[in-house]
Amino acid sequence: MTAITPLRPQLRTRRINLDTGRENVVVISRRSTALRPEVFRGFSRVELRSGAKVILATLLLTDDDNLVSPGEIGIAEPAFRRFAEPVDSYVAVTPAPPPVSLDAVRAKIQGKTLTPSEIGSIVDDLTRFRYSDMEIAAFLVGSASFMTSGELLALTDSMSNAGTRLKWTSKTVVDKHCIGGIPGNRTSMIVVPIVAAHGLTIPKTSSRAITSPAGTADTMEVLTRVDLSVDAMREVVTACNGCLVWGGHVNLSPADDILISVERPLALDTREQMVASIMSKKIAAGSTHLLIDLPIGPNAKLAKASDAMRLRKLFEFVGDHFGIAVEVITTDGSQPIGNGIGPVLEAQDVMAVLANEPHAPADLREKSLRLAAHLLEYDSALRGGAGYARARELLESGQALRQMQRIIEAQGPTICRNEVGDLTADIRATDDGVVSAIDCLHLNRLARTAGAPLDKGAGIKLFKKIGDRVERGEALYRIHAFEQSGYDLAVAMADAGSGYAIDGDSLRSGARH
Amino acid sequence: MTAITPLRPQLRTRRINLDTGRENVVVISRRSTALRPEVFRGFSRVELRSGAKVILATLLLTDDDNLVSPGEIGIAEPAFRRFAEPVDSYVAVTPAPPPVSLDAVRAKIQGKTLTPSEIGSIVDDLTRFRYSDMEIAAFLVGSASFMTSGELLALTDSMSNAGTRLKWTSKTVVDKHCIGGIPGNRTSMIVVPIVAAHGLTIPKTSSRAITSPAGTADTMEVLTRVDLSVDAMREVVTACNGCLVWGGHVNLSPADDILISVERPLALDTREQMVASIMSKKIAAGSTHLLIDLPIGPNAKLAKASDAMRLRKLFEFVGDHFGIAVEVITTDGSQPIGNGIGPVLEAQDVMAVLANEPHAPADLREKSLRLAAHLLEYDSALRGGAGYARARELLESGQALRQMQRIIEAQGPTICRNEVGDLTADIRATDDGVVSAIDCLHLNRLARTAGAPLDKGAGIKLFKKIGDRVERGEALYRIHAFEQSGYDLAVAMADAGSGYAIDGDSLRSGARH
Repeated sequence: MTAITPLRPQLRTRRINLDTGRENVVVISRRSTALRPEVFRGFSRVELRSGAKVILATLLLTDDDNLVSPGEIGIAEPAFRRFAEPVDSYVAVTPAPPPVSLDAVRAKIQGKTLTPSEIGSIVDDLTRFRYSDMEIAAFLVGSASFMTSGELLALTDSMSNAGTRLKWTSKTVVDKHCIGGIPGNRTSMIVVPIVAAHGLTIPKTSSRAITSPAGTADTMEVLTRVDLSVDAMREVVTACNGCLVWGGHVNLSPADDILISVERPLALDTREQMVASIMSKKIAAGSTHLLIDLPIGPNAKLAKASDAMRLRKLFEFVGDHFGIAVEVITTDGSQPIGNGIGPVLEAQDVMAVLANEPHAPADLREKSLRLAAHLLEYDSALRGGAGYARARELLESGQALRQMQRIIEAQGPTICRNEVGDLTADIRATDDGVVSAIDCLHLNRLARTAGAPLDKGAGIKLFKKIGDRVERGEALYRIHAFEQSGYDLAVAMADAGSGYAIDGDSLRSGARH
Repeated sequence: MTAITPLRPQLRTRRINLDTGRENVVVISRRSTALRPEVFRGFSRVELRSGAKVILATLLLTDDDNLVSPGEIGIAEPAFRRFAEPVDSYVAVTPAPPPVSLDAVRAKIQGKTLTPSEIGSIVDDLTRFRYSDMEIAAFLVGSASFMTSGELLALTDSMSNAGTRLKWTSKTVVDKHCIGGIPGNRTSMIVVPIVAAHGLTIPKTSSRAITSPAGTADTMEVLTRVDLSVDAMREVVTACNGCLVWGGHVNLSPADDILISVERPLALDTREQMVASIMSKKIAAGSTHLLIDLPIGPNAKLAKASDAMRLRKLFEFVGDHFGIAVEVITTDGSQPIGNGIGPVLEAQDVMAVLANEPHAPADLREKSLRLAAHLLEYDSALRGGAGYARARELLESGQALRQMQRIIEAQGPTICRNEVGDLTADIRATDDGVVSAIDCLHLNRLARTAGAPLDKGAGIKLFKKIGDRVERGEALYRIHAFEQSGYDLAVAMADAGSGYAIDGDSLRSGARH
């Protein structure tokens, strides 16, 4: 191979203002002589090399010299950023063989069990952005049908080692994680200040919404900065015992972020991959004690307690192996938690609970206290049932609120607006009765269509929950939006179906009047 | 849904000179108001609608108004051609839900068996370009580990119905197919004129090379036009009993072409998918009798006779179900067939055999006669062993050559140059001995690197085959190229390893001197 190196064709780099998502993409001219015969049929991936720097990219072709001339190579974002060569430098471009670890992916597809080193090489190639989207899909689907427990451990281990590893001075580092799917449900923002006020270390990283109307990072961002560096995060935790930052900026388990970017559009839902994903991040974050919240409900990710059981065993198995004390609890996932759906509306719920306001949502308060109780009992002084009383004391005394204010101040001022959307529509009951079911997926779609999470103040404010009596014409919830088009779409969607079942009627019984 | 239609945001279309391969791709401005909140996170696919026309596309973003301004949508090739709306028209753009049939793909991944109607909906969505590359990969990998015979039949049936269906007046329509992988091996170009000269109908469609140095369509193109329309192909077959055209232009089994475009870069090799792929094309082509050639050899797709057996049963099973008489034979796949590798060099071999030239490659002649004999015996007058003698008679009498000339004339003049590359290098034996093995994959790579198939006259001319005695310094083969860079690379590769084993030495024993 070394003999061939001087012959690699060189092309001049150009930056193309095109965001191609996760995948590396480059553009060359159809009349480029540098790559002509080898590439134009069969090879859609090329390798760019400059000194020791190498990236793989998917190749697109153009006839437009204004875009890319025959002597140039256009590099789209994020490949340009990742390759980090200046414009007008010369790079060697050759057809790229598929990443070597793809042999292991094919072996897995054919039913073989992978060794830890094979899994390690897959994770390494993933982390270096060497996989195309279709190659990532092949790995995910190939391991979706069956994964041994050894493979699960190896995948978790490799992913946890692929990015930042956090270390903390305290012996006990607690964390919580919810597998998601329930609108509202911003318990972390109440649990963290309670636990931190008690004195336990809880360096919480959260995700932004991808397909939901808000992630904890989006909601926290209404109150404070969340895109902290690892060093800034450490300072906050040293000062306040806890933090609530966006995990995407801290680069824990980057391979997992890449897998999720393909898993999500394919709507794949593999237990082993979920466990490896969550546990790799917690291991990288330096957690010693972890509480996992599994909501169960008809529209939740888990429909039955028996589904939760197998998942719980998997979490415990991986936790045991890596020396993390894992506790898994199931919670009510039949309806939204709290009254707000969307970042600003959810942040209002959180602050109302922390401030002990009389109209603060009781379900959010109770669930948060319950979760905080579990975490507090990792303190040996509270073990055996004293956690709940201590959590309530910290909340009711205002200590949790003051701790939250310290965290907010330490993380720095937000740049987000915090008013709710001024375009509003009330969706009303069409009949008298009792609310018997709420379709979480439908409300998520409505809030998202109204503009959440990008419009922080867009979303839904719920007035009725399951078990509440309603009269015909009474408002079930209010849609908030800023943009007319999103507002119109959301209202039309809610008119077509409110997502509420009243007295056991169908879920489509609400309407505006 | 209809209530929402008038609210769909409209964008002005613009054509983007960017060839994105198979996948539909569009570009919008990051400041586009039309799609803002719903799209920017989580949805990477959009739906374009104009009247009844709808396409799905993958969405890329730009900040460059020269590329696409906020009120516009840029449509890349081939999406622009498929959508077929003029530039500056207004189209409705909305986030696209995944194709409905993806539910069936997920069910398959989870181990369920799909119904014919589920498979039909997948094929329908594939054919309408509704799947992204990663979704296609999910389907391929999801069905790679296990497919029931019912699923195989349903997939074959759906794919054969998705494009052009050819009908012929003759009751017997014969065809041959080789699963490929062996350099040279242009038997179809000899078999078709022999069989057509006898009077049997043999409307042969062939593929172009994708990862090899030549497909039959590339080689035939040296002699005549191959991109015939369905109507033009029919005329040729009516006039000459046979043809040799490029299948890509005739649109038999377009879903298969799409699956192959993802299967190939992933190097997936699933027996059931191979059988569905080949049989769907033959059913669509109206074949009644089909001969399948399975080469067996150390670098062939099938390494052992036992591998061929299972594949043979699958072909016969599907043939039986669809009323096609399938005959499967195994052939020697241990080395190239004929002496040329690359379109012009292979065409020279073919014409030498048809012209009964004394130095015509004997292996290509013998194999072609053997295959033609099998096909001729589908004529009841020749059944039971008279096929071979008849094939030889048609070849030796010059009738096959004259039939080939008629076919060439009917298909029309070629636009390709037919000289061989004038940059040449002879690769020589480093020892005395007997050629014991030839690495087909290595020779394929060499020929491709030298410029084949795009440079028709690039490739390799073999002087020695397995069993031949060679002396140290004697030429094993000659590399032909037109372009210096491809020539240099190919020669460097051949110097590093000739691909020939002499007297049981390692495969890397050749060199230039």
